[in-house]
Amino acid sequence: MIPRYTRPQMEAIWSPQNKYRIWFLIEAHATDKLAELGVVPQSAAEAVWKAKDVEFDVARIDEIEREVKHDVIAFLTHLAEHVGDEARFVHQGLTSSDVLDTCLAVQMRDAADLLLEGLDRLLAALKARALEHKTTVCIGRSHGIHAEPTTFGIKLARFYAEFARARTRLLAAKEEIATCAISGAVGTFANIDPRVEEHVAQKLGLKPEPVSSQVIPRDRHANYFAVLGLIASSIENLAVEIRHLQRSEVREAEEYFSKGQKGSSAMPHKRNPILTENLTGLARLVRSAVIPAMENVALWHERDISHSSVERGIGPDATVHLDFALHRAAGVIEKLVVREEAMKANLDAQGGLHNSQRVLLALTQKGVSREDAYRLVQRNALATWDEGGHLKDRLKADGDVTARLSDGEIEALFDERYHMKHVDTIFQRVFGTA
Amino acid sequence: MIPRYTRPQMEAIWSPQNKYRIWFLIEAHATDKLAELGVVPQSAAEAVWKAKDVEFDVARIDEIEREVKHDVIAFLTHLAEHVGDEARFVHQGLTSSDVLDTCLAVQMRDAADLLLEGLDRLLAALKARALEHKTTVCIGRSHGIHAEPTTFGIKLARFYAEFARARTRLLAAKEEIATCAISGAVGTFANIDPRVEEHVAQKLGLKPEPVSSQVIPRDRHANYFAVLGLIASSIENLAVEIRHLQRSEVREAEEYFSKGQKGSSAMPHKRNPILTENLTGLARLVRSAVIPAMENVALWHERDISHSSVERGIGPDATVHLDFALHRAAGVIEKLVVREEAMKANLDAQGGLHNSQRVLLALTQKGVSREDAYRLVQRNALATWDEGGHLKDRLKADGDVTARLSDGEIEALFDERYHMKHVDTIFQRVFGTA
Amino acid sequence: MIPRYTRPQMEAIWSPQNKYRIWFLIEAHATDKLAELGVVPQSAAEAVWKAKDVEFDVARIDEIEREVKHDVIAFLTHLAEHVGDEARFVHQGLTSSDVLDTCLAVQMRDAADLLLEGLDRLLAALKARALEHKTTVCIGRSHGIHAEPTTFGIKLARFYAEFARARTRLLAAKEEIATCAISGAVGTFANIDPRVEEHVAQKLGLKPEPVSSQVIPRDRHANYFAVLGLIASSIENLAVEIRHLQRSEVREAEEYFSKGQKGSSAMPHKRNPILTENLTGLARLVRSAVIPAMENVALWHERDISHSSVERGIGPDATVHLDFALHRAAGVIEKLVVREEAMKANLDAQGGLHNSQRVLLALTQKGVSREDAYRLVQRNALATWDEGGHLKDRLKADGDVTARLSDGEIEALFDERYHMKHVDTIFQRVFGTA
Amino acid sequence: MIPRYTRPQMEAIWSPQNKYRIWFLIEAHATDKLAELGVVPQSAAEAVWKAKDVEFDVARIDEIEREVKHDVIAFLTHLAEHVGDEARFVHQGLTSSDVLDTCLAVQMRDAADLLLEGLDRLLAALKARALEHKTTVCIGRSHGIHAEPTTFGIKLARFYAEFARARTRLLAAKEEIATCAISGAVGTFANIDPRVEEHVAQKLGLKPEPVSSQVIPRDRHANYFAVLGLIASSIENLAVEIRHLQRSEVREAEEYFSKGQKGSSAMPHKRNPILTENLTGLARLVRSAVIPAMENVALWHERDISHSSVERGIGPDATVHLDFALHRAAGVIEKLVVREEAMKANLDAQGGLHNSQRVLLALTQKGVSREDAYRLVQRNALATWDEGGHLKDRLKADGDVTARLSDGEIEALFDERYHMKHVDTIFQRVFGTA
Repeated sequence: MIPRYTRPQMEAIWSPQNKYRIWFLIEAHATDKLAELGVVPQSAAEAVWKAKDVEFDVARIDEIEREVKHDVIAFLTHLAEHVGDEARFVHQGLTSSDVLDTCLAVQMRDAADLLLEGLDRLLAALKARALEHKTTVCIGRSHGIHAEPTTFGIKLARFYAEFARARTRLLAAKEEIATCAISGAVGTFANIDPRVEEHVAQKLGLKPEPVSSQVIPRDRHANYFAVLGLIASSIENLAVEIRHLQRSEVREAEEYFSKGQKGSSAMPHKRNPILTENLTGLARLVRSAVIPAMENVALWHERDISHSSVERGIGPDATVHLDFALHRAAGVIEKLVVREEAMKANLDAQGGLHNSQRVLLALTQKGVSREDAYRLVQRNALATWDEGGHLKDRLKADGDVTARLSDGEIEALFDERYHMKHVDTIFQRVFGTA
Repeated sequence: MIPRYTRPQMEAIWSPQNKYRIWFLIEAHATDKLAELGVVPQSAAEAVWKAKDVEFDVARIDEIEREVKHDVIAFLTHLAEHVGDEARFVHQGLTSSDVLDTCLAVQMRDAADLLLEGLDRLLAALKARALEHKTTVCIGRSHGIHAEPTTFGIKLARFYAEFARARTRLLAAKEEIATCAISGAVGTFANIDPRVEEHVAQKLGLKPEPVSSQVIPRDRHANYFAVLGLIASSIENLAVEIRHLQRSEVREAEEYFSKGQKGSSAMPHKRNPILTENLTGLARLVRSAVIPAMENVALWHERDISHSSVERGIGPDATVHLDFALHRAAGVIEKLVVREEAMKANLDAQGGLHNSQRVLLALTQKGVSREDAYRLVQRNALATWDEGGHLKDRLKADGDVTARLSDGEIEALFDERYHMKHVDTIFQRVFGTA
Repeated sequence: MIPRYTRPQMEAIWSPQNKYRIWFLIEAHATDKLAELGVVPQSAAEAVWKAKDVEFDVARIDEIEREVKHDVIAFLTHLAEHVGDEARFVHQGLTSSDVLDTCLAVQMRDAADLLLEGLDRLLAALKARALEHKTTVCIGRSHGIHAEPTTFGIKLARFYAEFARARTRLLAAKEEIATCAISGAVGTFANIDPRVEEHVAQKLGLKPEPVSSQVIPRDRHANYFAVLGLIASSIENLAVEIRHLQRSEVREAEEYFSKGQKGSSAMPHKRNPILTENLTGLARLVRSAVIPAMENVALWHERDISHSSVERGIGPDATVHLDFALHRAAGVIEKLVVREEAMKANLDAQGGLHNSQRVLLALTQKGVSREDAYRLVQRNALATWDEGGHLKDRLKADGDVTARLSDGEIEALFDERYHMKHVDTIFQRVFGTA
Repeated sequence: MIPRYTRPQMEAIWSPQNKYRIWFLIEAHATDKLAELGVVPQSAAEAVWKAKDVEFDVARIDEIEREVKHDVIAFLTHLAEHVGDEARFVHQGLTSSDVLDTCLAVQMRDAADLLLEGLDRLLAALKARALEHKTTVCIGRSHGIHAEPTTFGIKLARFYAEFARARTRLLAAKEEIATCAISGAVGTFANIDPRVEEHVAQKLGLKPEPVSSQVIPRDRHANYFAVLGLIASSIENLAVEIRHLQRSEVREAEEYFSKGQKGSSAMPHKRNPILTENLTGLARLVRSAVIPAMENVALWHERDISHSSVERGIGPDATVHLDFALHRAAGVIEKLVVREEAMKANLDAQGGLHNSQRVLLALTQKGVSREDAYRLVQRNALATWDEGGHLKDRLKADGDVTARLSDGEIEALFDERYHMKHVDTIFQRVFGTA
């Protein structure tokens, strides 16, 4: 959890205070049901709730843990300091993992909700800017080379659709992680009635884990972190696009650069796309959680504790950094400086080469074989590429071309509106409205 | 694609023959629609289908590709050798990626279907053996240490539930990957009508990609490989369980060992769990596809071709090895030798320690504080652990215990049926039937 | 940086205080040389050293950074608050990365030194225990199945040799990371004399980077983190061995279990190998730094800043967690409870099967073909495996065997000293002394 | 092993024929020593060498393996078909892994030698082109934004130095992997004299493994694959540089484009950097071997076989693809089209902004505080960035600047030779000669 890439809302989910608050709720609700089932006295259940508004003393719990070397026992010991003698009925038949794993499920579920907020902000920004630039023409590039025109709105619509898929996956992952296991030492409910699990699950907005071992199975967690890694990769995708557009030679878009900002300590002229470069790095960080989470799946028998240290790291780190990245990405899009005149200039700079395919198709339509048409266009296109000038002028001067196409027909092949005719179709598909 | 871990069914999906067959279908269906739209002559569409039953000549296509250095152009050139002059209308307005990416979608969709068959075989095996061993008692272990009893059926039910989740995820990934993009050089449909895409999609059982660049967005593929990595991790989980159970000191289960098999070239006495060890390795291999697939997401602008070499590797490798692994895992479970007597012996070997929690709870019920009860039980348990004997005998000899519990009560705490009382509940949850 | 897996010594290396201390040293030494070269006044160089013993005010620097959005400029501004007007000569011709990257090199070099201390402690522990148990016989296992006898000392010698290789690699990685770059905005020394770099390098115990861009090339860092990942994997190797040995059914070794420790909140009888399980998880965490570090290598042109956020994470995290893990591993080995009697019992428990190869070889020596000998031994061995009893008794009752080997010869094949005859050779090779 | 990214030289190393050739050598040399030690008859040793020139029949060995389910036993059975009855003395006291692991060491050592050849070709290409373009001025870029001038030769020198480090690491990894283990079932030499290992090692150019279990420890292999992953990352670094330089808007360098080549099936004008894009993908593939190789380190006890399937994949794949990538990268550099005029044009296109630092430093030298100087330069630089024109003209029109700097002084600050003065120093450091 790198402080400068941490928003307090997500940090709070992983705070010791919040953890102990959730532990308390699990124990208290469980004790309620145990009392109802007659396993512990009703008075015990009532006593526990005395600690309802306690802000638990993290330092004190740490102190106890140093002695007993067990975090849940330390918490229960401290709870007894608040609740009194009745505390001995708390945790009856539960095992530590019942508390730890159900708590982790709550934290991961809540973290997913926060990530969904970030995704929604990013989606809203992408949609707004996509609609704004629906018909802002710019060159499309494959292999970094000018290909054919597109619009900046289509680019953003593409990212919108990608993050909409991310949203769907995250919702499914959240659904999958939100289970409650209170099933005892090896998942047999030997010392605890399954109705306790059902009660606690219902109170915390979780589903009972159908079959647990001592722990909730780790494929659920691995799936969750894989989904975070996928979202991070999509953020990298968006970030790399912006970084390319801001290159000195391209400059079709720029991150907002505030008054008083310094791009470089040494070179006062610099405006660097540092936010999106930073997002690229954060994507690598978030993605690094995926493999350890998958390595956590194969625990020994009914559990070993190797997953725990991994999750102490990647649980907070991956969610905190992704949360930050989503909001940073949204901010970049919201304030992105779009330089339409540069888009126009770049489009015009390559001598009309981006219409080479249309000329090829027109020649084919006129009965030239595809192979011959390709050769005809390529020889004029590569000459334009190497020596400059405009492709249409070269075509008009090539007898093999003019034998098939009139000057007027050639001229018409360079009308840019041709490329825009299906923008509405695409927007309709992505946004449900054109 | 390691030959010994390859089933022919999956290999066939990735064969050049199959690839060219799909390319042909895409081009032929597209030409049909182009003809209907009046873009190309109807005769061209008809001509293409002449090649319907052609087994394309891979060596010939390779030969052409060596000259033109472009695979789709090589195929089209070869197609013309079958179809004749009308071939010049084929691929009209398409770009290579329209063909390549739609083909890849078909292959990955079909691979997913084959993987689902493997999953279903494994699920069936797990369910059958789980029901068979629903009440086969064995010790549950946390940290590799005896904890409390469970049943071998519960173990298998747990894996069943895990692979059922895997199935859900794979279905979603299959759904997500099954899109068709025929949208031209940068996805604007400049030279191709969107209805061509819709037609081809419908014919191939795909959905149109709502917005593509030159390619289908790679987050779809990354998600797919992440799901394969998750399934592989679950296979590792199952494999590690079997390997543990087959250890010399445990021997509660064994892979089937056929007549004439040699466990070791040097040591004739060996029966090694080599199938599950192999599965453990295959899981690592399959998982290694996840990160490169995620690194493929951030292509430059409307596409770069860096993803292609990655997919030429991980596409076949991850699906082929996972397909093999699923069937190997299913075979292991189907024929697994379950040694109930060893389960019983191991359960009995630790002096009843696995009932320590019950004693603890019983003492608490009798009014002893949790802390004191813990200390009472622990001192007898650790003595049993270190010096042998049976826990119940030590308890009966401990005055602090007998002050609270009678010999009869102690004896009752060691009745194993106690641990089995909720097996039905668990089976009901997992299989919908107890 | 997870607090419970953090030793203060390593944390200190990554503290803001230490970072600013190193920044100061770089700037001050650079200014010295700049003064000597006549670029800045001698008085400026002297003025800078006024801040020599300043504990820089992290909160104040953060405050300035919030305004100027640039960390090095923030530091220089704060430095001016200590040094006064002469501060304008500081950082003359340097670029921020000169300071940041040279500082990171110092931190990674110092972190490597601390890791080497941890490695040395672990090596010492392994050596001491290896010598102690040089002839403590135990069964060797392949595939988790008893194979042939070895000694516990040989096991530990094997890990010693592995960590000795780790040490060699870490020394090389440390050597490689310890470079200084003070070469200006794109590495051309346009505004800074290369002698400044040489001077600062020499003062800080670094080598000048032969050719830098704006930054020190990231293959150096990637190599460093790969080496950390390798060490972590070796720790996992050691941890998994201990975890296996502590299994209930094996119990040949146990982590030290202190008075008052609780193995489980629910089951008072438990003594779990939680330290080595934890090490297994920490290994996954450390290893997760490797791929992002490699993804950092391909920066754009003369640098982009994507590596920075990654390194803010993995720099402290991987070194801190590995440092902790090395000391935890050393502690486990130092205090490991070795249960020689269990080793003996396990060795004896499989009816002498571990001598099957010797019988095979003996039969071959008597002229039996390898194939026939294999079949002869295997049929007796598998019967022993399945039905119990002792292999030598079965052999003595097998006419095909006794036709070749006398009872005395058979008996001799089960003398365990046979397996120990080359222990000295191995110890000589590993420790240089037997 | 993707055929199109496979060179036959590397493929041959991993062919079954080569594997069986090495197995034969190991067995034959071992038998020689066994005969010398009197363990087997001299006639057996001589008999084995009868198979010296045999091309082993892979199909026949596969057939036997299908029966015995053990590859080494299958080979030995087949060897007996050539050698006759004396074959029963072969493999005396060896275990399969002695053969397999020593063979793998030979293959990995030989693969490293081939990779070193590729590295050397790439290094030679980088050096030649670096010297050729030592003073070819081009803009250096940080964050994709013009920073200050450098030379194309310095760029290449930087990559040269990086691959020279890669070479050093690969040599060390090769040295480390080249060990021989012939130590029997658990590494104790119980049934085999250590002198056999020493003899075979010496004959095959290996070192004896100081202490093995049943296998050679896998940290050696993991280190090897980590080094391959590092080299791949450096190739990606080089590839990304070329891809950037070939962008339409930059076009400072281009991959060689041969006559008859087609850049795109649809757009005849395209010349795409497909080789370096391909290298970027291959880098991801090679890198994907690193983590599974590290996961292979923690084998159970004296070995489990989980590493084997992983190595069957990554062994050939990572070496074959890296070998191909090195030669492809070398070819790209050898034939790279360097467009000096475009470098000049791009350098001149940003209105002299790349000298902003020099102006800043000049003002500081004139007594302006760093803060004030920064503001002065920044206001003129950002105006140039946003509105065009030349920085020096703006400076000459800024009274706060001209109060300190004369027009002549300003003009001198834009002399590009300033940036080149230390090129010799850098070349001296990298190549040992300027």
